[in-house]
Amino acid sequence: MRRAARVRPVATPSAGSILVVLDLVGIAVFAISGALVAVRKELDLFGVLVLAGATGLGGGFLRDVLIGATPPAALDDWRYLLVPTAAGLVTFVYHPTLGRMERLVTFFDAAGLALFCVAGALKALDYGLSPLPAALMGMTTGIGGGILRDVLAGRVPVVFRGELYATPALAGAGVAVVAHELGVTALVGTVGGAAVCLVWRLLAVRRGWQAPMPSGPASV
Amino acid sequence: MRRAARVRPVATPSAGSILVVLDLVGIAVFAISGALVAVRKELDLFGVLVLAGATGLGGGFLRDVLIGATPPAALDDWRYLLVPTAAGLVTFVYHPTLGRMERLVTFFDAAGLALFCVAGALKALDYGLSPLPAALMGMTTGIGGGILRDVLAGRVPVVFRGELYATPALAGAGVAVVAHELGVTALVGTVGGAAVCLVWRLLAVRRGWQAPMPSGPASV
Amino acid sequence: MRRAARVRPVATPSAGSILVVLDLVGIAVFAISGALVAVRKELDLFGVLVLAGATGLGGGFLRDVLIGATPPAALDDWRYLLVPTAAGLVTFVYHPTLGRMERLVTFFDAAGLALFCVAGALKALDYGLSPLPAALMGMTTGIGGGILRDVLAGRVPVVFRGELYATPALAGAGVAVVAHELGVTALVGTVGGAAVCLVWRLLAVRRGWQAPMPSGPASV
Repeated sequence: MRRAARVRPVATPSAGSILVVLDLVGIAVFAISGALVAVRKELDLFGVLVLAGATGLGGGFLRDVLIGATPPAALDDWRYLLVPTAAGLVTFVYHPTLGRMERLVTFFDAAGLALFCVAGALKALDYGLSPLPAALMGMTTGIGGGILRDVLAGRVPVVFRGELYATPALAGAGVAVVAHELGVTALVGTVGGAAVCLVWRLLAVRRGWQAPMPSGPASV
Repeated sequence: MRRAARVRPVATPSAGSILVVLDLVGIAVFAISGALVAVRKELDLFGVLVLAGATGLGGGFLRDVLIGATPPAALDDWRYLLVPTAAGLVTFVYHPTLGRMERLVTFFDAAGLALFCVAGALKALDYGLSPLPAALMGMTTGIGGGILRDVLAGRVPVVFRGELYATPALAGAGVAVVAHELGVTALVGTVGGAAVCLVWRLLAVRRGWQAPMPSGPASV
Repeated sequence: MRRAARVRPVATPSAGSILVVLDLVGIAVFAISGALVAVRKELDLFGVLVLAGATGLGGGFLRDVLIGATPPAALDDWRYLLVPTAAGLVTFVYHPTLGRMERLVTFFDAAGLALFCVAGALKALDYGLSPLPAALMGMTTGIGGGILRDVLAGRVPVVFRGELYATPALAGAGVAVVAHELGVTALVGTVGGAAVCLVWRLLAVRRGWQAPMPSGPASV
């Protein structure tokens, strides 16, 4: 339990500025998805910005609160506050255009999911969690923002229905955790885990893979 | 504020393996109730598992985050992750059967509530809270999972309507806190508090006791 | 990161008992707003009390969990638990009367918002956050209770629609943070920030100021 040595998002120190950029891209794309939901729900500018921030940062906040890494790293770094705000403002103005770039948004969303699940899992390991909970925290980091977005927007989280979303995140986090436990360097584990998540997620979108549904009618 | 000495769920060290089993039974039954809600909402396998986990573990997570006991104990113990997952899978497959065993589910749910409210209150005392907040944290532990389940499933928490549910939990937690303050051994306080909650809750179900409703029409 | 020196709500030590009273008034009015929503949703007594507590204390709890100030100060001070409970009970009984005193409730609600945003920002600074995140935490303290109230009551948070609410809170928190950074005494920053928020909010209500809405139809 290292509380004193507050760590920045895992990507930052271990793999340099490329990963920081990817992290911020992930936050931006998640923020755009939140802002688009807000526009569809006819929320005002403030609602758009809050849903953008909650979706972009919510998964990381949830992870940080659960593993005791408070205050969340994003509150220490102005870039992590600027990016979702800017993404929300851009979406507020250009939402018709962004709403039409569905394939691009889906791709970046998958990329954000891939990076978040790996970064989240590695940070949880860094705070002393065992492998299985760390992988679950990785998945939580990836899907938490979208769940928060949907709860705030008054709808059942889409991650609970439809296309495979959480499973690729759990798989990517699992690969990163296993690589870490085997002593593989962080870069390899990060790239490997993120690739598994990204490819799986994109295949799920393209081929319409879905999670199994309960069979038979629900009683009562 | 003892942070270093991370404690396992209160039941574990103080009262031996019987209470661990009861704790896991409580998690399992809460998880089943969450999975049944997910099936009724036509969520997919992943939604069923997440609602199972959120319902089984959510109350304890909420308590641990509020009292600063992070990461939550359940993230340190694989049994606390395995049980709700298994309960979710079983419900996913056998939901028609489980949905029909309503009386049994209600009984175990009351047992889970009874144990959670007591264990939650004792853990809060252990983290330095005063008696009144500790009793409220006990109630929160008991009802938090169900509230989280309903918020995620997009419905107003059932604990806010209908049969008495939270009051027995607060009473059971209160008994355990008072016993603790009077220096009674943990086992007696645990059994006494749990018994008060269990009996009250089962009587409420059987006799249809309800919490009072506001009188008169709400203005606007 | 000062964890050991648990601080009471910022107002308490620095500006004496007048601010404590204002703090409790803010909690009471927020609690009444939560209880009125519960009555309109036809929740039972327990639902009324929980929504009262969640609305009155939720913003502060959210801030405390995020900045690592756990357990939240309100759990250490019985007055902070008594006030929302009493406000919930009074609303349960007298809701037709309170529902009609709309102007008074709106005024006190603005006063609560004004005090919460300032106190929240100063507490976040006290826990080591930088100015921008501290101002955001101040806003979160002010609006968090209402958001929690609406999520629990199953509706989209009203702060996301309609009259300006969050912007005055952010402005008030910003004034308090700037004053703090400039070395102005806490009392001046508190009064100045609260006044900015209060006047802005009341003007917004009176003149019907609204946050901008997205233009054009949402795609899809």
